[in-house]
Amino acid sequence: MCGIVGILDAGEVSFSLYYALYALQHRGQESAGIATFDGATINKYRGEGLVAEVFDTPTLGRLKGHCGVGHVRYPTTGTNRPENMQPFLFEFQDLHIAIAHNGNLVNYTELREEYEQRGQIFWSSSDTEVIAKVFTDEIRGGSSVEDAVHLCMRRLRGSYSVVMIINGVLYSFRDPLGIKPLCIGKTRTGYIIASESVAVDALGGTLVRDVRPGELMRVSEEGIACTQIAVANCPAHCIFEYIYFSRADAVVDGALVYDVRRKIGRKLYEEAPVNADSVAPVPDSGTAYTIGYAEGSGIPFVECLMKNRYMGRTFIMPNQKAREQAVRIKLNPVRSHLEGKSIVLVDDSIVRGTTSRRIIELMRSSGAREIHMRIGSPAIKAPCYLGVDMPTREELIASNKAENEVRKSITATTLHHISIEALVEAIGMPHGHLCTGCLTGCYPVQIEGEIDTPRAVNFVDGSFQTNLGTFVEEEDL
Amino acid sequence: MCGIVGILDAGEVSFSLYYALYALQHRGQESAGIATFDGATINKYRGEGLVAEVFDTPTLGRLKGHCGVGHVRYPTTGTNRPENMQPFLFEFQDLHIAIAHNGNLVNYTELREEYEQRGQIFWSSSDTEVIAKVFTDEIRGGSSVEDAVHLCMRRLRGSYSVVMIINGVLYSFRDPLGIKPLCIGKTRTGYIIASESVAVDALGGTLVRDVRPGELMRVSEEGIACTQIAVANCPAHCIFEYIYFSRADAVVDGALVYDVRRKIGRKLYEEAPVNADSVAPVPDSGTAYTIGYAEGSGIPFVECLMKNRYMGRTFIMPNQKAREQAVRIKLNPVRSHLEGKSIVLVDDSIVRGTTSRRIIELMRSSGAREIHMRIGSPAIKAPCYLGVDMPTREELIASNKAENEVRKSITATTLHHISIEALVEAIGMPHGHLCTGCLTGCYPVQIEGEIDTPRAVNFVDGSFQTNLGTFVEEEDL
Amino acid sequence: MCGIVGILDAGEVSFSLYYALYALQHRGQESAGIATFDGATINKYRGEGLVAEVFDTPTLGRLKGHCGVGHVRYPTTGTNRPENMQPFLFEFQDLHIAIAHNGNLVNYTELREEYEQRGQIFWSSSDTEVIAKVFTDEIRGGSSVEDAVHLCMRRLRGSYSVVMIINGVLYSFRDPLGIKPLCIGKTRTGYIIASESVAVDALGGTLVRDVRPGELMRVSEEGIACTQIAVANCPAHCIFEYIYFSRADAVVDGALVYDVRRKIGRKLYEEAPVNADSVAPVPDSGTAYTIGYAEGSGIPFVECLMKNRYMGRTFIMPNQKAREQAVRIKLNPVRSHLEGKSIVLVDDSIVRGTTSRRIIELMRSSGAREIHMRIGSPAIKAPCYLGVDMPTREELIASNKAENEVRKSITATTLHHISIEALVEAIGMPHGHLCTGCLTGCYPVQIEGEIDTPRAVNFVDGSFQTNLGTFVEEEDL
Amino acid sequence: MCGIVGILDAGEVSFSLYYALYALQHRGQESAGIATFDGATINKYRGEGLVAEVFDTPTLGRLKGHCGVGHVRYPTTGTNRPENMQPFLFEFQDLHIAIAHNGNLVNYTELREEYEQRGQIFWSSSDTEVIAKVFTDEIRGGSSVEDAVHLCMRRLRGSYSVVMIINGVLYSFRDPLGIKPLCIGKTRTGYIIASESVAVDALGGTLVRDVRPGELMRVSEEGIACTQIAVANCPAHCIFEYIYFSRADAVVDGALVYDVRRKIGRKLYEEAPVNADSVAPVPDSGTAYTIGYAEGSGIPFVECLMKNRYMGRTFIMPNQKAREQAVRIKLNPVRSHLEGKSIVLVDDSIVRGTTSRRIIELMRSSGAREIHMRIGSPAIKAPCYLGVDMPTREELIASNKAENEVRKSITATTLHHISIEALVEAIGMPHGHLCTGCLTGCYPVQIEGEIDTPRAVNFVDGSFQTNLGTFVEEEDL
Repeated sequence: MCGIVGILDAGEVSFSLYYALYALQHRGQESAGIATFDGATINKYRGEGLVAEVFDTPTLGRLKGHCGVGHVRYPTTGTNRPENMQPFLFEFQDLHIAIAHNGNLVNYTELREEYEQRGQIFWSSSDTEVIAKVFTDEIRGGSSVEDAVHLCMRRLRGSYSVVMIINGVLYSFRDPLGIKPLCIGKTRTGYIIASESVAVDALGGTLVRDVRPGELMRVSEEGIACTQIAVANCPAHCIFEYIYFSRADAVVDGALVYDVRRKIGRKLYEEAPVNADSVAPVPDSGTAYTIGYAEGSGIPFVECLMKNRYMGRTFIMPNQKAREQAVRIKLNPVRSHLEGKSIVLVDDSIVRGTTSRRIIELMRSSGAREIHMRIGSPAIKAPCYLGVDMPTREELIASNKAENEVRKSITATTLHHISIEALVEAIGMPHGHLCTGCLTGCYPVQIEGEIDTPRAVNFVDGSFQTNLGTFVEEEDL
Repeated sequence: MCGIVGILDAGEVSFSLYYALYALQHRGQESAGIATFDGATINKYRGEGLVAEVFDTPTLGRLKGHCGVGHVRYPTTGTNRPENMQPFLFEFQDLHIAIAHNGNLVNYTELREEYEQRGQIFWSSSDTEVIAKVFTDEIRGGSSVEDAVHLCMRRLRGSYSVVMIINGVLYSFRDPLGIKPLCIGKTRTGYIIASESVAVDALGGTLVRDVRPGELMRVSEEGIACTQIAVANCPAHCIFEYIYFSRADAVVDGALVYDVRRKIGRKLYEEAPVNADSVAPVPDSGTAYTIGYAEGSGIPFVECLMKNRYMGRTFIMPNQKAREQAVRIKLNPVRSHLEGKSIVLVDDSIVRGTTSRRIIELMRSSGAREIHMRIGSPAIKAPCYLGVDMPTREELIASNKAENEVRKSITATTLHHISIEALVEAIGMPHGHLCTGCLTGCYPVQIEGEIDTPRAVNFVDGSFQTNLGTFVEEEDL
Repeated sequence: MCGIVGILDAGEVSFSLYYALYALQHRGQESAGIATFDGATINKYRGEGLVAEVFDTPTLGRLKGHCGVGHVRYPTTGTNRPENMQPFLFEFQDLHIAIAHNGNLVNYTELREEYEQRGQIFWSSSDTEVIAKVFTDEIRGGSSVEDAVHLCMRRLRGSYSVVMIINGVLYSFRDPLGIKPLCIGKTRTGYIIASESVAVDALGGTLVRDVRPGELMRVSEEGIACTQIAVANCPAHCIFEYIYFSRADAVVDGALVYDVRRKIGRKLYEEAPVNADSVAPVPDSGTAYTIGYAEGSGIPFVECLMKNRYMGRTFIMPNQKAREQAVRIKLNPVRSHLEGKSIVLVDDSIVRGTTSRRIIELMRSSGAREIHMRIGSPAIKAPCYLGVDMPTREELIASNKAENEVRKSITATTLHHISIEALVEAIGMPHGHLCTGCLTGCYPVQIEGEIDTPRAVNFVDGSFQTNLGTFVEEEDL
Repeated sequence: MCGIVGILDAGEVSFSLYYALYALQHRGQESAGIATFDGATINKYRGEGLVAEVFDTPTLGRLKGHCGVGHVRYPTTGTNRPENMQPFLFEFQDLHIAIAHNGNLVNYTELREEYEQRGQIFWSSSDTEVIAKVFTDEIRGGSSVEDAVHLCMRRLRGSYSVVMIINGVLYSFRDPLGIKPLCIGKTRTGYIIASESVAVDALGGTLVRDVRPGELMRVSEEGIACTQIAVANCPAHCIFEYIYFSRADAVVDGALVYDVRRKIGRKLYEEAPVNADSVAPVPDSGTAYTIGYAEGSGIPFVECLMKNRYMGRTFIMPNQKAREQAVRIKLNPVRSHLEGKSIVLVDDSIVRGTTSRRIIELMRSSGAREIHMRIGSPAIKAPCYLGVDMPTREELIASNKAENEVRKSITATTLHHISIEALVEAIGMPHGHLCTGCLTGCYPVQIEGEIDTPRAVNFVDGSFQTNLGTFVEEEDL
């Protein structure tokens, strides 16, 4: 999981990229980077930590240019190497290229070996470098960017939402299944392409639409050109974006995430009603679900756990005892809302079960009588190979235990996960248009050792479909 | 406004002080400091910024000792000097003393001049140094700490909640009016005295009770001794602690802040009902009020502004345009919850009116039809001299304008502030036990140029009232 | 040992103070500080480390003012506390005062206790704070600065060269024995008072003269006024300034240090001639002595040990082995200059003997046949109480061993220390005008438990002697 | 100009690499880096600044492994990009490779274009990346490292001294002309290959010999194998190593640099004798030359300029005036050694002439009567294409002016550069074995637009010549 953004504008873009990355910060806190093209060369700055920690005014001032890309990176086991920080830059003949990517290639190893056989050396263990190699492989013969993206879509297997600048032109494309989100928005004097619409909002812009699965967008001073490179029989949008990753105020592939979650909350009450004194969220992940549950049930919404707004990655936990104490400092139980009470507690998901158990224990130690846990996602039973850093089946509590066993393990009075059907209905698109690999163990791309039902992808004759005017005009796409 | 904490424990206290300061971080983000007594000398570390930024594991590891005090400092105009960072340390004969203070002395200048006349030099412009001088003045003649605190309570005018370590013993006292909060809690192997009960919670401790106005507590390995040094005819607890400063999950002078705010929310509906599509908080300050309003009115609680959780002090705003944009990055309006809707918007207070106006404009630009503003505090009409860094009367919008003028200025459809009577009722103590200086312009201590109705203070014959056993016992006070 | 500087100029002084401290860096590397008066208040910045590490351009830019003082601090055992960093600032009524001090008070503890008895509290363990207390004690009654310095000279026992700014006027005084150096110079548009003339040189200024023992200088926009506050029957200039502390290019109390050392080198040959292949310095401390020895003897000057110019305080030595290796990285023996050779090795002093032994071993391991050690100071037999951080008698190798035993211990072929008589002759002033406490164990001020022959001090009727014109004029004093 | 080092040892090597880089610090202060192989992967750390600034104990502790390479980088115009910091790391199939390089490729652009045509992308603008591509190009087909180095020596034109680790084996090679220095030394339990012998000395090791031009060394746990890959008809050792770059205590291609310089000093007197009061070095660059001059002439060696040992890259010069002042702070003229005197001033070289003029002006302003400048290098008339960052012909003062004009420009009384013949004689090898491009404008490799007399290079049948036993044995090579 990562967040990406590309901006082309009449003015300088570094501060806008910074603001957009701020809005996407929830998609990755491990590192942040910005690259801009200043007319002659690409300037970049990348660093470990939050956007706020990586950038300062002088740094942003040095990142000159009207066009650039940015990236925030999610920590993934074993890949925390400086070389893996994005955007990834390279030079090829007279082209200065910066690329940022959100997703995961299933055939990374296979492609890397092939390129090594051909004498290529690798600097990083990032699949972005493989995308760069495939892309360059086609373009060096004099092919167009469109042809190079065509080759990428033929050769890359997995999820990839990509933004890229080549000498002052912004390109962006999304894998044919549209697994990870990507949308385009319009600001007063330019265009922004980003993982979520909240980045468009942050610049005071207007969401135009999602980038279509299999589509390539070319944004330059002459305007926007959209090319449909490939078309799948049906897409495979990641359901976890709605449940967990995207911000509640994002509109992802047509649906407002907040409303999806509120609807799930209502359906949670319908599927598993309970009599209780109050319904409370695990803050902040459970809030929108809880509001829906309260509306559906009429049970009062009462905050029982107060979140410390200052907890960050730098919180010091010198030993095991401190780690246990951390949950208490992060979430303070409000005794008078808990003592002797029966509470419906709502959260978005249970992964390992550890956190849920600690929270329930905390609430019980403050006197809660009954805790009825309601979860906004179905049980997570299988790993993700397409960009979500999930634990293995061994670590996934629901992969190994029936719901009642999970309930016992987390010490809840009752437990209910939303059904897949209700989730799909809340999202409002056909089940077949979603990737539910982590819930069903059945994936939309071929993955060795797993059950898969790959979508069929057809390649379109790549002529430009639209030229949507210069970027200072207010017309729609 | 600051946060203070003192801890005496069977084990090392630096990490506990750190966790407690984390829980009090909302009371001050300008600087943080910890001082501990290691049996021979006092070790300290202070720095600018958040607790998380100031301390790291090696630093905490070096702060050895079973007893210590900590402080977080609120930025106050013109006093941001390194010398003013607390705890304030000094040595006197063979005593090693560290002191931390929350409050404001009204007669600071007068006392400072007096001591300068006597040949004393000053390092800082902090009133903590004046407290230290008064304290030492008495103790140098061989008087007891009790006598020295007695002198402090006679001579200091204003608000002061103080924690202090003297060679391994923890002392704490609160001004006779109990203006600023202070409470004592018990942990498994020690005691903690802190500005708010949330610091006790953070250590998994139990709140014992508030430190009484005019009381001195002495916490040592032999146990706790409480002495009532002075008694006022009635206290003057700061109402702004309930409205703004204290965390919602804190219990201040007997009342859970969250419930005070929820009750105010209900009363806001009773005093100024309105028909609307939804009721929404200004996050996070308006949340508890909004829940009360929604309960009272039956209007659905719907979040219309989503707060970016990553905004911090380091957010870069290079120019005016960026400052305007900052509110948009901090608070994202949810268009589909606003478009064409009539909204009740609830916040805790209006000071200058600038923020309220920006937020309302933001909501209108996303299509809101009507915005009915409801405020959890009465109109703020006068400055505070007792520890809240309020602007001058000129800058306070309600000091100069009637409510309807304020409404126009912030561009709200309607506006209502809670009445003082309803506020007092929600807090649940007699009006006369509260300081409402900022609402009424009438203060509980003598302040030059202002109307005041000082409380009468009597001094008790300072014999120890209680010895409550050693600190490892579980008995109550 | 520390370095101090005060500057009053027509323009901004912070950068000049910085350059002056750079020139005095050899007098203290533990911390550096600058304080300036900007017309309204004193701005200061102090930090641990070298001048180059502590200051940057923005910091110096913020230190506004036409008048200021600076300090570099030598590490002294047990006193490395941030509070002890200088300049020391305090406020007294409407006076803003910054003071910096080089020296050591013998009666520090006695004075501190007295002031504590009078109710004063102490922030630091620095004797500068005691000087400030004594000074303020007099001035608070409305006395003049001259009277206050008079009181200081009566009450303070030990060495003290002081620079001080009081609201835009620069004051400076030196103890009646003139133990530590202090001189005044003139720049194009102002005056500088500093520990050594090299600071004057650094600003392109002209050395005017030494500040006289017992003299007070007042430098303001109106010009310089000099007052002789006290006069001793004879001064007691520290001999170690000539041997070790002062830079070779400094002129201290009338003598160029380089020439003193070169003369000592010549006398070393006269006192202990030897036949050898070459004469080599321990770089850089022995260089000037070696040049004198080579001149006197006719033996060729050949560098046999090359110093690594990049060794600094941050050199990492994780363990004992590394510490032994450090000397090898710091000083590289030149094998072809050593192999089979007889070498005269010259250094300034032997304190514990450890370094000398390591260097001689290093040279022998590269093949040196004979090493004749010649030392520019007489044997150091006693501690210093007046500002040089010497080890105890137990640690001083010459305090416990005869010269031949020292020779054996450091494994030299022969060893000779310069005689006190030759040293005194090289300095060129009467023996009675020097402090030779560390060589003789007989001190010029009263020190408990030591032999002393205190100088007699008379106090002058403190009328101004001279007004030397405004500071922009080029006249001499 | 850079410094490189490779170490293979029975124990951990990171601290040894650090000490070796310390000894080579004079060869590059812009950045420093270390890479080690820990048995599984390569760990690296690189950063801007001095070795002392880049590394700390925890960082070195994390760089595990018995084999590694290090690099210090000289600032070269326009190439200060983080990607250009060395060692350069890459992965190829199961090989983990780190490479560090000192030198400059004349055909860099040509080779880079060729590889881009073949679809390769470039991360950096460093010629090290081109070396890596050529090397990998051969090795991917299953060829040996020897064959790959053979290809490198055929294809790379210019200077290159290279150290490289491949999965725990240390390789090193030097271009067939041996332009830049490289030597091998033996420590107690391992081997070290470094730019200068001083790195061997720093570890307490013994210099074995220089790496021969065109030779490849393979150092592994089994021992050292040396292969002569290519042989030139005669080498082309850089004369500037003797004059300027190498430390005086280094032995470069058989000659002690200090003695070369001392001999040049003597010859300077023979070629241009003068009657003067004293002979003085520009510290520290002129010291060894000056000692030779003093010996040859009998004129006393007297230091007239004292160098501030604390000047570093962080010295602040906010404006032009300060830059002029910097020379005064860096070099303090000793007035009493200059006033009315005739001085022979000796330095190693004159490049632009600016520094020489400033120093002479400084000496004259302190009263020097005559200044006879003597220079240890012949006049520098042409740029260097082989690794020395020289200015253009336009900026080289001697490229455009006859010696007498240069003398006038720097305001010296007389001026003499050493003759090429005397320089060659002092170095002690035939003129034809040296590169004198910067003195004559005639280069030993083909350079477009310049006169060149390229050496003929023959390729040897690459069988191993020697296996010199395991690395723990004390045998010689």
